[in-house]
Amino acid sequence: MREVEAKIVLSDCTLLEAVEDRVKRLGGVLRGEVYEKDLYFQHPCRDFAETDEALRLREEGGRCTLTYKGPKEGGRVKSRLELNVEVGDCDAAKGLLERLGFKPVAVVAKKRRYYLLGDVEVALDNVEGLGCFVEVESKRGREEDVLEAVRMLGLDRFPSTTKSYLELLLEKMGSGFRVRGGEASKGG
Amino acid sequence: MREVEAKIVLSDCTLLEAVEDRVKRLGGVLRGEVYEKDLYFQHPCRDFAETDEALRLREEGGRCTLTYKGPKEGGRVKSRLELNVEVGDCDAAKGLLERLGFKPVAVVAKKRRYYLLGDVEVALDNVEGLGCFVEVESKRGREEDVLEAVRMLGLDRFPSTTKSYLELLLEKMGSGFRVRGGEASKGG
Repeated sequence: MREVEAKIVLSDCTLLEAVEDRVKRLGGVLRGEVYEKDLYFQHPCRDFAETDEALRLREEGGRCTLTYKGPKEGGRVKSRLELNVEVGDCDAAKGLLERLGFKPVAVVAKKRRYYLLGDVEVALDNVEGLGCFVEVESKRGREEDVLEAVRMLGLDRFPSTTKSYLELLLEKMGSGFRVRGGEASKGG
Repeated sequence: MREVEAKIVLSDCTLLEAVEDRVKRLGGVLRGEVYEKDLYFQHPCRDFAETDEALRLREEGGRCTLTYKGPKEGGRVKSRLELNVEVGDCDAAKGLLERLGFKPVAVVAKKRRYYLLGDVEVALDNVEGLGCFVEVESKRGREEDVLEAVRMLGLDRFPSTTKSYLELLLEKMGSGFRVRGGEASKGG
């Protein structure tokens, strides 16, 4: 329900392998490798850039999940409400959302290998058009678990960001999309 | 995708049995008996009473379906766009929709026995707080199939309505909800 995570920016995708070795040495267990295609929407009458919310359809391995993310909360790591609903079919859900006035904003696609390491999940992400990142997320919603894992993995010497991939992608595209602390949206 | 149906208003629920006998004599095949609980929503910034649209979460036998209905089109029977998406969990979907600003308007609950009769589906409905109805829907989206089945079943001597159960229920409740040809919504 609550997403509490740190996002580490790797300067180079070849670093992913070293991080993965470290995760394994610390006892991390590979949980899966997935290709996730995320479609983000803008609200019909609420500016998600202002409200710092997000609505996303995620397609992965033939499954589709609709996710709402609430505004980011204060703290040293990224923390926000996250509500997930499985849906039967991403295309049908997209069509229905569009009828309700939600507008597709951008697609974020990534290859992710994720490990369970104690009480945190460590995701090794290669994001199309953006580069490589490590996300460390607490399964118990505890900020201290995230910070400890980041330290143990030696990731505290890399820069981190509280921005979402959507936000980073739209920034990089230098599009007409406005970005304001949270998710991004088409500028009015 | 397109809902094309006639809704017959029975003056008395005891008439359901006679209609069912007739459906069976004509070769109708019972497809199921269900208890459907439908929760209707109002749009965060669009007046569904004005636009004649509807958004519904239907719970039935542990399954949940999200449905969008478009404005009713002209014709002798009720015809409108209908988009359905299966969702994993009605409570989770309701929570997510509410976060997006959709507001629950009313619940329509009914017991339905439905038959397949040639190219039409005949539903025998007992709607809580409203009474009994027969819905005849074309599986091929053809108005003439609906009209023929209504005639064959001897239902053309009963009144019919193009109003939805939601609309009929809100009218009966005499609530502060405004009703305008289509679905209903809370008056401003």
